[in-house]
Amino acid sequence: MILILFFFLPSLLSCNSHPLDPLTPSELSIIQQTIKTSNGLNSSTPLNFHYVGLAKPDKSALLSWHADDSHSPPPPRMAFVILRFGRGQTHEIYVDISTKSIVSNKIYTGFGYPTFNLEEQTRASTLPLKYSPFMESVKKRGMKLSDVVCLAASVGWFGEVLKTKRVVKLICYVTGDTVNFYMRPLEGITIVVDLDVMKIVDYKDRFVVPVPKAKGTDYRSAKQSLPYGRQGKPVTVVQPEGKGFVIDGHFISWANWRFHLGYDVRAGAIISLASVREVEKGLYRQVLYKGFLSELFVPYQDPTEDWYYRTYFDTGEYGFGLYASSLQPLTDCPTNAEFMDGYYANQDGTPVKIKNVLCVFERYSGDSSWRHTETGIPGQVCGNYDYITNWEFKTSGSIKVLVSLTGILAVKGTTYTNAGQVKKDEDLYGTLLAENTIGVYHDHFLTYYLDLDIDGNKNSFVQAKIKTMRVTDGSSPRKSHWTVVKETAETEADGRVELGSEPANLLVVNTNKKTKVGNDVGYQIISHGATAASLLSDDDYPQIRASYSKKQVWVTAYNKSEQWAAGLYVDQSRGDDNLAVWSQRNRLIKNADIVVWYTVGFHHIPYQEDFPLMPILTGGFELRPSNFFESNPLIKTRPFKQTNWPNCTHRS
Amino acid sequence: MILILFFFLPSLLSCNSHPLDPLTPSELSIIQQTIKTSNGLNSSTPLNFHYVGLAKPDKSALLSWHADDSHSPPPPRMAFVILRFGRGQTHEIYVDISTKSIVSNKIYTGFGYPTFNLEEQTRASTLPLKYSPFMESVKKRGMKLSDVVCLAASVGWFGEVLKTKRVVKLICYVTGDTVNFYMRPLEGITIVVDLDVMKIVDYKDRFVVPVPKAKGTDYRSAKQSLPYGRQGKPVTVVQPEGKGFVIDGHFISWANWRFHLGYDVRAGAIISLASVREVEKGLYRQVLYKGFLSELFVPYQDPTEDWYYRTYFDTGEYGFGLYASSLQPLTDCPTNAEFMDGYYANQDGTPVKIKNVLCVFERYSGDSSWRHTETGIPGQVCGNYDYITNWEFKTSGSIKVLVSLTGILAVKGTTYTNAGQVKKDEDLYGTLLAENTIGVYHDHFLTYYLDLDIDGNKNSFVQAKIKTMRVTDGSSPRKSHWTVVKETAETEADGRVELGSEPANLLVVNTNKKTKVGNDVGYQIISHGATAASLLSDDDYPQIRASYSKKQVWVTAYNKSEQWAAGLYVDQSRGDDNLAVWSQRNRLIKNADIVVWYTVGFHHIPYQEDFPLMPILTGGFELRPSNFFESNPLIKTRPFKQTNWPNCTHRS
Repeated sequence: MILILFFFLPSLLSCNSHPLDPLTPSELSIIQQTIKTSNGLNSSTPLNFHYVGLAKPDKSALLSWHADDSHSPPPPRMAFVILRFGRGQTHEIYVDISTKSIVSNKIYTGFGYPTFNLEEQTRASTLPLKYSPFMESVKKRGMKLSDVVCLAASVGWFGEVLKTKRVVKLICYVTGDTVNFYMRPLEGITIVVDLDVMKIVDYKDRFVVPVPKAKGTDYRSAKQSLPYGRQGKPVTVVQPEGKGFVIDGHFISWANWRFHLGYDVRAGAIISLASVREVEKGLYRQVLYKGFLSELFVPYQDPTEDWYYRTYFDTGEYGFGLYASSLQPLTDCPTNAEFMDGYYANQDGTPVKIKNVLCVFERYSGDSSWRHTETGIPGQVCGNYDYITNWEFKTSGSIKVLVSLTGILAVKGTTYTNAGQVKKDEDLYGTLLAENTIGVYHDHFLTYYLDLDIDGNKNSFVQAKIKTMRVTDGSSPRKSHWTVVKETAETEADGRVELGSEPANLLVVNTNKKTKVGNDVGYQIISHGATAASLLSDDDYPQIRASYSKKQVWVTAYNKSEQWAAGLYVDQSRGDDNLAVWSQRNRLIKNADIVVWYTVGFHHIPYQEDFPLMPILTGGFELRPSNFFESNPLIKTRPFKQTNWPNCTHRS
Repeated sequence: MILILFFFLPSLLSCNSHPLDPLTPSELSIIQQTIKTSNGLNSSTPLNFHYVGLAKPDKSALLSWHADDSHSPPPPRMAFVILRFGRGQTHEIYVDISTKSIVSNKIYTGFGYPTFNLEEQTRASTLPLKYSPFMESVKKRGMKLSDVVCLAASVGWFGEVLKTKRVVKLICYVTGDTVNFYMRPLEGITIVVDLDVMKIVDYKDRFVVPVPKAKGTDYRSAKQSLPYGRQGKPVTVVQPEGKGFVIDGHFISWANWRFHLGYDVRAGAIISLASVREVEKGLYRQVLYKGFLSELFVPYQDPTEDWYYRTYFDTGEYGFGLYASSLQPLTDCPTNAEFMDGYYANQDGTPVKIKNVLCVFERYSGDSSWRHTETGIPGQVCGNYDYITNWEFKTSGSIKVLVSLTGILAVKGTTYTNAGQVKKDEDLYGTLLAENTIGVYHDHFLTYYLDLDIDGNKNSFVQAKIKTMRVTDGSSPRKSHWTVVKETAETEADGRVELGSEPANLLVVNTNKKTKVGNDVGYQIISHGATAASLLSDDDYPQIRASYSKKQVWVTAYNKSEQWAAGLYVDQSRGDDNLAVWSQRNRLIKNADIVVWYTVGFHHIPYQEDFPLMPILTGGFELRPSNFFESNPLIKTRPFKQTNWPNCTHRS
């Protein structure tokens, strides 16, 4: 009981103490009521909420409040709401929470639609079950209607000139003797649903291929039969002196770091105001004003009728935070983790809780003397795929962002049961993973928004290019060496980087702050694998929508409204409001408030080990101090007292 | 006492039970005595041992013995010895340990010299302390001779046509008020020592620059003063049910893996006979016949007189296993680790022990549901730099090889105390890290020997190239997609890969074994960062010696004598016996016994955080089953019972 109180108390006492805290359930209810009772929105047509989130205060206002060590009153709490209403209009509404009033209400008339809400997807997905042509299709395939599950898929944009309706396509699967229905697709059926009228508006049953068998697809341990695989012995972490971090509301302090951790229904985890303490001066220095996963683009590489449109934008179309799962203690996070819940507004605007949506823990990485304890935040599980996103803060000053892919592939039914049957020149657009089952080729592009403010918000982007120099004057027995040629980006055009095109260190520096020996203070971005860029043609429609996915790094001038790499309205977007378009404005980015966009990219050729559920594949990047500190900050961190070490004395 | 017995017993009982076990102290003594008492070697001239290691049995003999489940007698124990003797001759000697006899004794007459032994380096490094011109140089710099430490550095080869003497250059430093003398070089002095006559044969004092101050260079925690950095709380791992692996001599079984772990004075850790168990058939299937770090090339990028020759080959010139440090319990390996000692022969042939040279442990990686416990082996600390090399075996069938760089940079003294003093067009060949201290640009190329035998030793190397396909016939609303074009290497020329030049999966497959659905069984090599290749000109001498460092991947036909990427004799080598030269033979590698060579590469631009000791930087690669199993082997591994989980119920 005491423990329960203890963990509840900080949240009761500190809740909403920070202007960046996510909207609370009571705030969500106020927003819902404010909108529902407002003149002009109060109608017989239902209001459909598609996004409700904190409208972030102005950066300058927030920074002054933060610098004042929270002694002045915080900026007012505002919400940003996107809803559909009336004759299918998209409204952008700002609500002042304290005054319970609508500050502005604007109708959006451009291309693209807001993020789906869960309820409309669920409603749409049940329509076929009462639609007689579909019932006939299921029968024709020898399946039971009660075993069928359909899911809504975004349709993309393929060059239509006029505005298209807000439709989805349904992809249907068979459960039966497996929980893993994703492995049992019903191929050959096209079902189009208009979400605004919630009706099937197009239906085709074009061909029949066998539905893959259920056998071998279930991944639950209770469903496995002998023989079992051998395993090691369980390993658990313990912290004999308790946890080393303090969570005050959403503000986390650990070792030399402090940062704010928020949740957003679209972005998932948001890190804000991350700053690191310099030992000598005892002051915290700014590093990352804001960091989050801005977009996740997953284009499949099969151009056929059933698959060509599967070019998902998981953040903008589906909501990365909406699809987040509750983290499972011991399975997803270790025993020493602390959990945070997330809240979002459903279709009706009512608050819904996702329990344990984030966890925070100190990690044992003790493989070597200078690899210190770190604190990490994994989170987010989305769709059939599971993405585990980690933010690791290290005492060295590094922030390591890692993405782990696991979960279930999207597979395609086929008549083939053996690779030997495939005709020589035929393209399966994937790998035969099991009988009648193709794992379709695809990519994952996770684009991170990184508003780095290295020791202040006037920063510059520098490519420290590594260039071979010839020695031709006989001044050395050597004939060559490499050196570093630093190129500072003047405008956004200089801030576009294709990783691997030439060797370079990528730095964000503050030329207004120097170390004692006169170097510009800075941080470096280091890739840790997963540097794929999109291979689609520039004129292909999915590529036009995600035109930023051809380069892994972009640097833009800070603009409050430029947060989502594929634009604010991604469903059926046409690429007129994305990162690449903003960059075309070619603003000055030298000694300016700049944002770095970094894409973690994977080309995924499936293999049989990915069936029925893929083992983790990891990639990411590290933000590493590079002339930020005067010297290695680990040196000044005293090692932990060494206590229990039972095994060492066994050998002598 | 019981525990001590327990941990000693397996080693007593099983010692030498496996033909791949490293030479034991008693075997090293037998080899020493056999050689010392042999006719023709028994002379008044001292014998200098440069390498004593197990002469590996023939692969076919070993594999038959292994397949027979160790019931037949093992292949005989033989040692391979390199020694210098008589008129400076290099001898290659094979010793039969059981018969205590010399099987062959050959004089090597080619270019290059064997690995230095420790004793000759130590003797050489003390010569200047009694050499009056050097004593004068130290005095001129205002330093105390008793504070001076010199180290032997290989001199490389810079186009000399005639055979050169076996010389080293000495690089001298000042300790004084720091243990980190590497940060305090004496610049401007050239000292050349002939190792065979153990005399200074050349000496120059060319210029004086200030010796960097000791202040701030000591990294020992006891030497730090207030204020200290903040830290988290200690995190320890526990295994309530004990360890999950079994070590029988040098053979390790854990979960679905088994492998042999050896130590060699040149290579460090050697993994052999790694095989993974398939649950369905209950059989172990071969994956890696042998894997080890074959060479570590570290070229500095400063062409000036004091630095141009610093192009080290740490394995071939110095011995990666010889420079291995004892791993520190709790600091280097967690509480649940088991340690192994290593033994080598010193200059005189006498066995020397390196305690705890390797450790084995189960790792808690429990950040997510499908990231399972792994077993890992870190080891090896070499020279001023520390390299921590890890082999992680995962229940998913993956082997992850990670290299962590930490330790102390090689720095150069300078008159500069501030970056502002440097003339605009002057190249420092490095970064000003502190007053009078430049961290010189350099690379690290760690080349791994990977004799993969995927389900047998007839394998092929396949590049699954990812290629954009245009859709031009109007058959799809898409205009493009990518597909996979598999190219099987016919000869060694097809086995050279420049990573990043085009997107591809790199696979080693066995086309003689198919999965049930007809795919070739295989493993994939996935890079996890650190994919740098050498940037030196092809005609530069260090590059000629390490000509293989321009490509990260080579595939060669198995040849017992081709083990060391830069050749057997690396000191003053001329590039006539290295991996690139072997590959020029262009042997057939399709459906053959093949070896993959993978280089983990870092371009290192130093930053102030690397002073006085750099925080860990990690890179590596993963060998990942890719159509090796019928499906994900994790599915058949039952989860651990969930026990102690105190924190979860605090929030509800």
